[in-house]
Amino acid sequence: MARKSPEEEHPVKAHGWAARDSSGVLSPFKFSRRATLEDDVRFKVLYCGICHTDLHFIKNDWGISTYPFVPGHEIVGEVTEVGSKVTKVKVGDKVGVGYFLGSCRSCENCSEGLENYCPKVVLTSGAPYHDGTITYGGYSNEMVCNEHFIIRFPENLPLDGGAPLLCAGATVYSPMKYYGIAKPGSHIGINGLGGLGHVAVKFAKALGAKVTVISTSDRKKDEALNHLGADAFLISRNVEDMKAAAGTMDGILDCVSAKHPLVPLLGLLKSHGKLVTLGVPAQPLELPLAPLVVGRKLVGGSNVAGVAETQEMIDVAGKHNITADIELVSMEDLNTAMERLAKGDVRYRFVIDVANTLKAP
Amino acid sequence: MARKSPEEEHPVKAHGWAARDSSGVLSPFKFSRRATLEDDVRFKVLYCGICHTDLHFIKNDWGISTYPFVPGHEIVGEVTEVGSKVTKVKVGDKVGVGYFLGSCRSCENCSEGLENYCPKVVLTSGAPYHDGTITYGGYSNEMVCNEHFIIRFPENLPLDGGAPLLCAGATVYSPMKYYGIAKPGSHIGINGLGGLGHVAVKFAKALGAKVTVISTSDRKKDEALNHLGADAFLISRNVEDMKAAAGTMDGILDCVSAKHPLVPLLGLLKSHGKLVTLGVPAQPLELPLAPLVVGRKLVGGSNVAGVAETQEMIDVAGKHNITADIELVSMEDLNTAMERLAKGDVRYRFVIDVANTLKAP
Repeated sequence: MARKSPEEEHPVKAHGWAARDSSGVLSPFKFSRRATLEDDVRFKVLYCGICHTDLHFIKNDWGISTYPFVPGHEIVGEVTEVGSKVTKVKVGDKVGVGYFLGSCRSCENCSEGLENYCPKVVLTSGAPYHDGTITYGGYSNEMVCNEHFIIRFPENLPLDGGAPLLCAGATVYSPMKYYGIAKPGSHIGINGLGGLGHVAVKFAKALGAKVTVISTSDRKKDEALNHLGADAFLISRNVEDMKAAAGTMDGILDCVSAKHPLVPLLGLLKSHGKLVTLGVPAQPLELPLAPLVVGRKLVGGSNVAGVAETQEMIDVAGKHNITADIELVSMEDLNTAMERLAKGDVRYRFVIDVANTLKAP
Repeated sequence: MARKSPEEEHPVKAHGWAARDSSGVLSPFKFSRRATLEDDVRFKVLYCGICHTDLHFIKNDWGISTYPFVPGHEIVGEVTEVGSKVTKVKVGDKVGVGYFLGSCRSCENCSEGLENYCPKVVLTSGAPYHDGTITYGGYSNEMVCNEHFIIRFPENLPLDGGAPLLCAGATVYSPMKYYGIAKPGSHIGINGLGGLGHVAVKFAKALGAKVTVISTSDRKKDEALNHLGADAFLISRNVEDMKAAAGTMDGILDCVSAKHPLVPLLGLLKSHGKLVTLGVPAQPLELPLAPLVVGRKLVGGSNVAGVAETQEMIDVAGKHNITADIELVSMEDLNTAMERLAKGDVRYRFVIDVANTLKAP
């Protein structure tokens, strides 16, 4: 049986912007969404953050993209309809959806609230959903999602600056908790001050840690110390400063995606210190084992957060008024924003003003 | 002031075997040891294990050796004298000393019983002691040591087969506990069945874990399963078997010291699994970050154990009758044993019958 077109596979008309191939260009796209099931939440998209992962998928950098691809997994909106069994939210509530909107709900990870590590996790964009259709993300007029994966948005948190937290916030918050590296009395290093790093500084401070930003130059020093609230700033190319800071950190969140040496970072850790990598460089890194063995240090990873922990993260953000520093862009400016993102020309996160700028087809 | 000769720096005559240079050859050596201080324990050496680290130091593989070098840090003996303030043991008790016999006693690690990670830890062989002299290890007639670093030897444990546990046992036991990878219900992989690996199998079984030995060939399969008590045996070159075992292990103790690929081992781990490296290959290994991030896995290290945990380990050994599988050698056969060790020709640990074979000078 021939597969139905995106416009015909579901009963509800929808529209957004999609990449049609790996050229990197997005354009208006008509598709459809399912009717609201009994445990579904339907919401109008208000804002959607632009994550670097969107760019990787748009350009098929990892060879796993499907087209047409509607990006967007940092989605904030207002509930327009709920299924008969939904208890989590009601019409009019502000809600969010992050990196994924489905999982098997029965494996060991799912049963522990770690849906993000479920082998059958369904990403919010470009992934096969349980019903066989492909998921279309938040660069669109509306979303529909099983209530389990819905995040309740704190009333006081700005919707635009809060949107990126659904991915970036979850990505930095979860390892701080899991590896126990950001708490009162601890000293954490944040390597790389970009979309992830700048949010990491804010959460680490909220969790009570001493925070040192590690960067390749002093370009962002003033901003790190005086705007983001970091306690110290370390230039990784400055051999003397790195030597002075050796053995002082309980953990480092490594937010750098390009290939880079791990040894200087391992040197900054105390014994039993933890270097947590969040980026995935295309090539393997070099890992000498002596620093790990001699100081019982570790190099670990982490990948967003489960639903419950994402809710915890956004509640912490609400309590401490944490938002991402964003530049709000219109749908029409999407391709320009993508070009700038590819060059790293953004402080620190683009958010699309979807509701106000997405035109009906 | 000229430094005193090894024979003159202390009042008590001592003798053993030493390496005089990096040739790898050991020969009889006369030196001296301090008189028993008020918190010192003096003991006659009965048995001393030969650790691969001894060979590295003898040959100056790491460029940090000093000569003459008296190796030996898996030492078991009988107490001959105790200082006036000693409470831990009495004359006639069986005791042991492991990889180190001094530390600062005041840093954060020392105060947490992690003397093995003290920046001023004093190794049992070839290291500067607090009094400025160089430590001489257990390839010798007697030892003298601050009581804090003395391990009480379980009465039922064979002294010869128990000696290697003071280093090898501590080295495998500590990470099993710290990383939580060997307990009832867990599945641990032991990569490499040598001096460390064969002891690791025994401790992991005693701690209640399911144990799979990972090896490059089936040469040791029968021994692993039928003698050491492993539950399964996996040949790392067998692609099909490795695929079938993918994602099944909570942790792996990597006991291989040669350079080797980490990716196949990471693939055997469940999400949140832990790969703990004990060896220190001369070159860095290749570490791709994707498996760490996607599955929240980690690569960590570990280095012997603190005094209290070494005592715990040897008590567990006593309870479960765990000893190393050893080949007892005489002092006269030391150089032959070293040559065989360098070729990996030992199952699984040499122990020197010191008291019965070390001749007076």
